[in-house]
Amino acid sequence: MRADGRAVDELRPITITRGWSEQAEGSALIEFGGTRVLCTASLTEGVPRWLKGEGRGWVTAEYAMLPRATSTRSARESVKGKIGGRTHEISRLIGRSLRSVIDLKALGENTVVLDCDVLQADGGTRTASITGAYVALAEAISWAHENGVLKPRVNPLTDSVSAVSVGIIDGVPMLDLPYVEDVRAETDMNVVVTGSGDFVEVQGTAEGVPFRRDELDSLLDLAVSGCAQLSQIQRETLESTRGR
Amino acid sequence: MRADGRAVDELRPITITRGWSEQAEGSALIEFGGTRVLCTASLTEGVPRWLKGEGRGWVTAEYAMLPRATSTRSARESVKGKIGGRTHEISRLIGRSLRSVIDLKALGENTVVLDCDVLQADGGTRTASITGAYVALAEAISWAHENGVLKPRVNPLTDSVSAVSVGIIDGVPMLDLPYVEDVRAETDMNVVVTGSGDFVEVQGTAEGVPFRRDELDSLLDLAVSGCAQLSQIQRETLESTRGR
Amino acid sequence: MRADGRAVDELRPITITRGWSEQAEGSALIEFGGTRVLCTASLTEGVPRWLKGEGRGWVTAEYAMLPRATSTRSARESVKGKIGGRTHEISRLIGRSLRSVIDLKALGENTVVLDCDVLQADGGTRTASITGAYVALAEAISWAHENGVLKPRVNPLTDSVSAVSVGIIDGVPMLDLPYVEDVRAETDMNVVVTGSGDFVEVQGTAEGVPFRRDELDSLLDLAVSGCAQLSQIQRETLESTRGR
Amino acid sequence: MRADGRAVDELRPITITRGWSEQAEGSALIEFGGTRVLCTASLTEGVPRWLKGEGRGWVTAEYAMLPRATSTRSARESVKGKIGGRTHEISRLIGRSLRSVIDLKALGENTVVLDCDVLQADGGTRTASITGAYVALAEAISWAHENGVLKPRVNPLTDSVSAVSVGIIDGVPMLDLPYVEDVRAETDMNVVVTGSGDFVEVQGTAEGVPFRRDELDSLLDLAVSGCAQLSQIQRETLESTRGR
Amino acid sequence: MRADGRAVDELRPITITRGWSEQAEGSALIEFGGTRVLCTASLTEGVPRWLKGEGRGWVTAEYAMLPRATSTRSARESVKGKIGGRTHEISRLIGRSLRSVIDLKALGENTVVLDCDVLQADGGTRTASITGAYVALAEAISWAHENGVLKPRVNPLTDSVSAVSVGIIDGVPMLDLPYVEDVRAETDMNVVVTGSGDFVEVQGTAEGVPFRRDELDSLLDLAVSGCAQLSQIQRETLESTRGR
Amino acid sequence: MRADGRAVDELRPITITRGWSEQAEGSALIEFGGTRVLCTASLTEGVPRWLKGEGRGWVTAEYAMLPRATSTRSARESVKGKIGGRTHEISRLIGRSLRSVIDLKALGENTVVLDCDVLQADGGTRTASITGAYVALAEAISWAHENGVLKPRVNPLTDSVSAVSVGIIDGVPMLDLPYVEDVRAETDMNVVVTGSGDFVEVQGTAEGVPFRRDELDSLLDLAVSGCAQLSQIQRETLESTRGR
Repeated sequence: MRADGRAVDELRPITITRGWSEQAEGSALIEFGGTRVLCTASLTEGVPRWLKGEGRGWVTAEYAMLPRATSTRSARESVKGKIGGRTHEISRLIGRSLRSVIDLKALGENTVVLDCDVLQADGGTRTASITGAYVALAEAISWAHENGVLKPRVNPLTDSVSAVSVGIIDGVPMLDLPYVEDVRAETDMNVVVTGSGDFVEVQGTAEGVPFRRDELDSLLDLAVSGCAQLSQIQRETLESTRGR
Repeated sequence: MRADGRAVDELRPITITRGWSEQAEGSALIEFGGTRVLCTASLTEGVPRWLKGEGRGWVTAEYAMLPRATSTRSARESVKGKIGGRTHEISRLIGRSLRSVIDLKALGENTVVLDCDVLQADGGTRTASITGAYVALAEAISWAHENGVLKPRVNPLTDSVSAVSVGIIDGVPMLDLPYVEDVRAETDMNVVVTGSGDFVEVQGTAEGVPFRRDELDSLLDLAVSGCAQLSQIQRETLESTRGR
Repeated sequence: MRADGRAVDELRPITITRGWSEQAEGSALIEFGGTRVLCTASLTEGVPRWLKGEGRGWVTAEYAMLPRATSTRSARESVKGKIGGRTHEISRLIGRSLRSVIDLKALGENTVVLDCDVLQADGGTRTASITGAYVALAEAISWAHENGVLKPRVNPLTDSVSAVSVGIIDGVPMLDLPYVEDVRAETDMNVVVTGSGDFVEVQGTAEGVPFRRDELDSLLDLAVSGCAQLSQIQRETLESTRGR
Repeated sequence: MRADGRAVDELRPITITRGWSEQAEGSALIEFGGTRVLCTASLTEGVPRWLKGEGRGWVTAEYAMLPRATSTRSARESVKGKIGGRTHEISRLIGRSLRSVIDLKALGENTVVLDCDVLQADGGTRTASITGAYVALAEAISWAHENGVLKPRVNPLTDSVSAVSVGIIDGVPMLDLPYVEDVRAETDMNVVVTGSGDFVEVQGTAEGVPFRRDELDSLLDLAVSGCAQLSQIQRETLESTRGR
Repeated sequence: MRADGRAVDELRPITITRGWSEQAEGSALIEFGGTRVLCTASLTEGVPRWLKGEGRGWVTAEYAMLPRATSTRSARESVKGKIGGRTHEISRLIGRSLRSVIDLKALGENTVVLDCDVLQADGGTRTASITGAYVALAEAISWAHENGVLKPRVNPLTDSVSAVSVGIIDGVPMLDLPYVEDVRAETDMNVVVTGSGDFVEVQGTAEGVPFRRDELDSLLDLAVSGCAQLSQIQRETLESTRGR
Repeated sequence: MRADGRAVDELRPITITRGWSEQAEGSALIEFGGTRVLCTASLTEGVPRWLKGEGRGWVTAEYAMLPRATSTRSARESVKGKIGGRTHEISRLIGRSLRSVIDLKALGENTVVLDCDVLQADGGTRTASITGAYVALAEAISWAHENGVLKPRVNPLTDSVSAVSVGIIDGVPMLDLPYVEDVRAETDMNVVVTGSGDFVEVQGTAEGVPFRRDELDSLLDLAVSGCAQLSQIQRETLESTRGR
């Protein structure tokens, strides 16, 4: 039995408010329990210089945390004048994950920037970001269709994508770790899975003792089942009405 | 008649959700029409080095805007590696405004950092920040009383404080400008007023033609009346229950 | 009676040496008592990228202080690798103030950068900078006429502009505060006024207790009268011969 | 058959020159085919501030590439004034990997910094870095024993660690990818394995199409076998004489 | 005959205004023709951390140029966020030169920072800076004697120091090059000489063709004679009254 | 007799491995005793913006030290976020030295960047860098001839160039100082000489007491003779076969 009463293979309560922003082409406020991330998708014409004239688009992401998203305040990276390694790493992970379900040719010479700003953090902020960013991206693609930026029959989205964290605590593999579990995990793994159930990213790290192959297998099983549920929630959200 | 149907001396709909954050000692999500600012107050023991041993506390503020708070995306200051002049200026203004209603001696050797992060921007973000930051600060002071950080009878808050923007558009002085009015204003003024009705800051700028003394007087009248209403909303909010 | 023997409505001795620099298109060394600021105006063809092809010019300003302008040495901002909030704020104020008396269309696609470097600081450096920068700007416009950059009948200057600080000390409103008065002021206000007597900027700040409407009125009266004198000195300086 | 004539489960020629540096407490120049990385271990007394007084040591790593390690020159990160996301990510990976085989309590309040500088890059620089850094670390621990910094019976090393890249090219899983294969890989995985054969890190990324569970399994098999060979080479190197 | 009518071994008109600053412990505005440098000496108790407890003082220097010191405006290093190579190089040269005539033991645990800010540049700014910084330093030492920071009989100054530029133009060695000559020089040399006539620094650079030993000898002769004159002017300045 | 048994006018053992890098157009690993510097020459088409359309090429250099090149580890300049004064100064010296033997017109609109990375430091790293960079540059010019980037008869190299350090220790002038001698030297001089025996740079610094003209003369004699030997070794290296 876990501290919050969940079964080992149970997700926290998941809420996705699509269209939270009135300004962005796509947006979603996603909540995994106490973790709240505001994801916006900014779609603009044109591509970065290094891609010009290649007839392909670009999708990239930036992750950040508000200074008081956590239980003690962290200094702002803008004030420190540089971005930390963790921020860099997560931004790159989100970007790669979303690009795995986009056909950049079909996107045309357009760029989508996915901003994932953590308003409140309680574990799993990177996996919540990926899951929410997909909803924002899907909204932006709809916007592009509605506004003639993309032709009606062209759909750059090739699949959906979601992510979840799994870990081993006191020898037991568990799904979707909140902060109190995350800090105690012997092994911590983030898994990104498409709607079809294939892997986009598998990032497993032994925090304490190295892990065995059979433990790795159990974690992958849990993650695949968690992502199947998230994928279903994404689908339902996108079928619902926009706005808070 | 204004574009959104308001009278010239009418505020936009104001919403303050106190206790929005489960992590911070004090917090408020404040909305002035489409402008939404998340204000958190982080209260910690100790003071910056230059204040040590003087028996006084410190209150400071940091303002920032999410990249897609606005109609087109702006680059993050953390990515640019430096804070812009506008951000600096507003952070300093918020800090000064809140310090004007705090007795730093009574605060003891404690520090409060007020973070004002603009989630969505539609004009008046700095004045919404000051108004919301006061609620977050008041919550943090209550927290300090409830947790024994401050003695029951010691109240460092000497008054409340709120702020509003005013401006002259096509020769007409108006209260609480949204973005569409702000860009057209000939004169733009931000006024910070205490609950007792005295001035903390008056910052008037001629954007186009210089302004006359009588115009300045009309703007001050509008601002004082707007702040009186905001002051009332702050009071009601603080009497209500915490949480979203 | 003030420490330096002045009446409450009296300016410090003001000296403006126009044409101090042999290199710049316009320049002035301005002194307000012990405050000495070297102002240069650099006029070049072309405008920043965001203004290109709009048929308008640009005027901007940069303010800085030499490390030993003050009674104790401050670290250089170039060594710290970033510009502080105060520097940013003052640079922006000077730029806005000077733009208020320039017709950017009449300036054509030319840019003027006003550099205000404080060689010695004794209070009122930002207001001295604005007052001196106007003289440097006027010289640069003359240079542009003499060198065929502007046509003889085109005068982009629509008015003159000057600035002064005022403040309340021990309850008494006073004009043009040196450092010893500035640190003691309860309220501190910088006012920028055109040669015609209209307002460009009014920036009043309660350093200690909030201020009342009648106090604000007295401060504005003092400032308007101080700027009228400064405006007269600017005019006489520009009628005199260049050079130190 | 691969471009360089290797079998799919064959490593490139591996050379480790231990004791390459006369200055560092431990060092190794490691070569995986055309990839050459200079790894040094700097062991100093004391720990970072946040660890003081806890009776534990610290091991960290910094990775960098010389500007002309690659086929076209890259700008130096020191000249750009900031470290890129890729550098951050790899430095953190190396640090975590080496910490997984160190008992920080047994290390005492000492710090080891592992510098991995890529002199020439031909794919697999991060896995070569981890493999070489282990040799440098082992040398530094020997140095600590020889110089009385660690007591004879205290061995902070709990195991050895090595790493290798694997990937899927044209549907075929392959071991130890040089640059020409790396850019063509559909899936790219870096695996860090202890001398005992357990996992420290598994980082798999779909570069093009998402990958299936059976493909993941094949890649893990290849990696485990490759690391077993690397582990053997590390052992032989550490039994040989120091120096180039 | 040179463009300004001087003989090849003649200095430009040299003016040193000592005590230019009312704030600094020592200061001098030095002019070599059109080159004007404001040198201040800031003497404070204490030494940098790496010197603490060694019973010795420290002397260092910072050189900078105002943006419009030159014929076209340069961007500020504070705005660029970093100090250029030339600035670094000259600051280090000035610091070394002044330390060569200071007995750091006799200075006690005090630090002198010499700031050399070029207000107008017309060649030879680094040599003018060294020559002026010596006067500022000597004033600061006098100040230390007058204010009891140094004991009356302790004189940390072991000699005076001055510097001059020399160069070969159209095959002719010349003394003290203004900008128009400097850009045409085939060889450019900066020489720092003590009051006793010994060398502190010799920095010769072939700008175009390499130079021969006999040319080097002629340049050294010119520099030694120029510095003897500067040394005499320094002495006379320090015997005159302070202030502008 | 010196600590390493050399005569005062004797170089340390010099080794130059040309073609060390398989990636660069030219390269050399140069060793002066324990000092080891990897020099690469990157030749690319095109020139920096400020040179465009002038029909001339450009040669520049960047010097850096690995963090553990020295006996204690130094922080990376990339991590500190800025380049130190010493690095800047040496990079500029190397660039100037190499440009002195290149006819930039003959180079055409091509750029050569010389990277000198110190792998191990034992005194004289800047002079070793210049000597090694010449070999890398000569290789790159050969590469340009072999690859049709330069026409067969066009030789931009006008001479060779090498450099050596000299210094006075206990009153005795000595050639090629290792670290233990360098820190004890009263005067330290770096001299850059062409293959024809003329001077490119002479940089002499009094570390302790100022030096006399006759001492300067002895140092120059030693340096000229040392460079003649280095010039001979460069010639023999370039006649040998490439590669390690």
